Amino acid sequence: MSEKVGQHLLAQREAILDRLQSLLRLPSVSTDPAYAAGMAAAREFLMERLRALGLQDVQLLEGGGQPAIYASWTGAPGRPTIIVYGHYDVQPPDPLELWLSPPFEPAIRDGRLYARGASDVKGSTLIAVETVGAFLAVEGGCPVNVKFFLEGEEEVGSPSLPAIIEKYRDLLTADAMLSADGGRGSTTTPTVSIGCRGITALQFSLRTAAKDAHSGRVGGAVRNALHEMAKLIASMHDEQGRILVEGFLDGALDVTQDIRAESAALPFDEAAWYAALGAAPFGDPDYSVRERTTVRPTVEVNGMWGGYTGAGGKTVLPCEAHAKLTMRLVPGQDPAAAQAAVRRHLEARCPAGVALEFHYRPGGTRAFTLGPQHPLLLAAERVTEWVHGQRPVRVRAGGTVPITTLFQESLGIDSLMFGLAMPDEDAHAPNEFFRLSSLEEGLRSWPLLLTELGQLSPADFPKRG
Amino acid sequence: MSEKVGQHLLAQREAILDRLQSLLRLPSVSTDPAYAAGMAAAREFLMERLRALGLQDVQLLEGGGQPAIYASWTGAPGRPTIIVYGHYDVQPPDPLELWLSPPFEPAIRDGRLYARGASDVKGSTLIAVETVGAFLAVEGGCPVNVKFFLEGEEEVGSPSLPAIIEKYRDLLTADAMLSADGGRGSTTTPTVSIGCRGITALQFSLRTAAKDAHSGRVGGAVRNALHEMAKLIASMHDEQGRILVEGFLDGALDVTQDIRAESAALPFDEAAWYAALGAAPFGDPDYSVRERTTVRPTVEVNGMWGGYTGAGGKTVLPCEAHAKLTMRLVPGQDPAAAQAAVRRHLEARCPAGVALEFHYRPGGTRAFTLGPQHPLLLAAERVTEWVHGQRPVRVRAGGTVPITTLFQESLGIDSLMFGLAMPDEDAHAPNEFFRLSSLEEGLRSWPLLLTELGQLSPADFPKRG
Repeated sequence: MSEKVGQHLLAQREAILDRLQSLLRLPSVSTDPAYAAGMAAAREFLMERLRALGLQDVQLLEGGGQPAIYASWTGAPGRPTIIVYGHYDVQPPDPLELWLSPPFEPAIRDGRLYARGASDVKGSTLIAVETVGAFLAVEGGCPVNVKFFLEGEEEVGSPSLPAIIEKYRDLLTADAMLSADGGRGSTTTPTVSIGCRGITALQFSLRTAAKDAHSGRVGGAVRNALHEMAKLIASMHDEQGRILVEGFLDGALDVTQDIRAESAALPFDEAAWYAALGAAPFGDPDYSVRERTTVRPTVEVNGMWGGYTGAGGKTVLPCEAHAKLTMRLVPGQDPAAAQAAVRRHLEARCPAGVALEFHYRPGGTRAFTLGPQHPLLLAAERVTEWVHGQRPVRVRAGGTVPITTLFQESLGIDSLMFGLAMPDEDAHAPNEFFRLSSLEEGLRSWPLLLTELGQLSPADFPKRG
Repeated sequence: MSEKVGQHLLAQREAILDRLQSLLRLPSVSTDPAYAAGMAAAREFLMERLRALGLQDVQLLEGGGQPAIYASWTGAPGRPTIIVYGHYDVQPPDPLELWLSPPFEPAIRDGRLYARGASDVKGSTLIAVETVGAFLAVEGGCPVNVKFFLEGEEEVGSPSLPAIIEKYRDLLTADAMLSADGGRGSTTTPTVSIGCRGITALQFSLRTAAKDAHSGRVGGAVRNALHEMAKLIASMHDEQGRILVEGFLDGALDVTQDIRAESAALPFDEAAWYAALGAAPFGDPDYSVRERTTVRPTVEVNGMWGGYTGAGGKTVLPCEAHAKLTMRLVPGQDPAAAQAAVRRHLEARCPAGVALEFHYRPGGTRAFTLGPQHPLLLAAERVTEWVHGQRPVRVRAGGTVPITTLFQESLGIDSLMFGLAMPDEDAHAPNEFFRLSSLEEGLRSWPLLLTELGQLSPADFPKRG
């Protein structure tokens, strides 16, 4: 009976808010060793809370870096087993001088809780933890079996995550994953997240001569590495930004009428969006801006450099140039194949006498999508409609959430992002905040969602891999 | 009677070599304030030597930076007045660890004098000084009036030179300039220098949005500054390196049959040249490599950068990109017009919504050429033929020697580069050296050249401006 659980949670709202503020006071910055004590304190805080709430097998999962926190409650035989994902690490607080109140001293102003990590993602993580605890306190059990997996390296690219998953594979068997990270796509319209783009990366260098030369002495008779780099990069898109890399789109999702309708369902003010970025409208005119940024792939140069870049001038004819690329992928694209297509494109256009060298990690992350009838999705839609009195819009994210693909590929399970954060809450920036209204919505939504999932049997969840 | 003067100089060869080594021990690095004492010591050494040789009016010409050294002998009324140019500053010696003997401890190995500044240009400067001194000692006078102008900022781009020339304009009246810097175009074939390319520079930035954005969130719908930069740079040349900038070539020298023949007269092994650079053959197939690098203009990107260039990756969609360009100019091209043509080309191809910003100093340096019947040139050819027993080849340099143009435009006089350095002597690099045979050739050539010029009257020299 999630109703009693929800009432219990809402009655405890102030205590939970106090607890969240305590957690936010612990500076758990994963990227900087100077914050090791803050990381340890956040781990202890959460493990202590999980134990106090009656979770079992509370332990650290070690993978060589910051450990993940594990805790389980498996007292619902025959019911689905759900991994509940969150992370206890946060981004660095710099630049400190732009914060209106100190980043690790939570402050409430105008219904918003300001602190580093409030939105990303201690708020939503604690909502998930408290929800499971409330079921145990009120009902003596949870509608589903729960395995908490609270990562400590999300903000640094999850370097140990594959090793942790590999090492604790048996512990992590489950029917699905619910993530407290990621989720809401709009501040005004209720949404459910049905997927995100994948990613693959490529770095390359090109060389036109054994060493830099004097532009007066050889200029006109030796290839300039920067000119060659410019020609290669320019060859990858047409004037309207369409990708010209042969084979790159192989297998890519067709943007059907259904997908168009789905994409158009979220109210989106293109003019306001461009105005906020200070940019002019751009991109493949066959697709809307929402489509371009979610269901169409990209090839982007993230960095490009060569020659003399200091103050003043230097009459050098550079022999080396470098570029870093990332490609966002849509469902159906294979990261290795997409990467190989870009490489082939560059190799085919590289003139004789110019040496190309590629530096890349093989593969990448496939796009992730929940099927339109996936039980996680249908349950999330029902719950969101109850809570908001309005049917949510299905949205895809343009970015990449590697954990969704990693859990799918490693553990064979699908994920639903059901975090409460909103896209305007300055995650990763000064004055990060979390809406107090979101705390309340989370304490209403999560019990409902666990209850809905408890109506299902493990066989209802598609298994992959 | 230059013969007696030449004999006197050759008899004193060892003393002059000792004196050159003393000068080379003085670390006169103009770019680094830590070498201020070395600069002052080199100035004192040369001023003392000029006084000892009987030059008059020895003084420093101040222009705000490192002063130039001036000294004159004007005891030949009715004869031409020649400014003798050299410089006493040198390049920094770094990287020190690559020197086989310390850069400021001259060492002789295999007929070569190794030291920073030996080739560029203390060796040739001292030859000029000693030659004039020998005339005064042996003959009691010089065949021409001489005004030494020994610069102290040549290696840092001569920032004070225009101010010095402007301030001491009356002191610097002359019929021609003879430079101890620059000159020999080959280690095997005698050459005389008849000109060099000019230069103009341009730096620009482009902006596609108000700030960098997340490549997942906006990728596909916002212009990437690096893609735009690549398209602009790629638009300036065709696949064979021909310049596509409309108006850039306006006024440029026609490469006539005469110029072709002149360029072809210097033996030049294209395959060996490319092999030494570690580069593949490239450039406008309508011209030889020598022509491409001397009588055809260039547009070169010296540096280009934007986005994330550190280790690893960053999924940024960069809003800013930057490029530094220099253009080598041939006779007939106006630097300001060439610069404006490049700017117009970029502006015309810059899409709406992309902001271009240019940073440049107006103007630049025109190409310099001595007319085919110029008395400086004819005299240098006669002298070189006597010394080498072989008629020299007329060569143009691909680089730029701003002083030639500056003296022409400011003082209305033409210049001849008559230095003894050879192009393989690692000027600006570790283990710079000067051939002892060049010292001897210089001590034979310079007296002959001054004697030849003494046969002329001031009216024989064309005046400009």
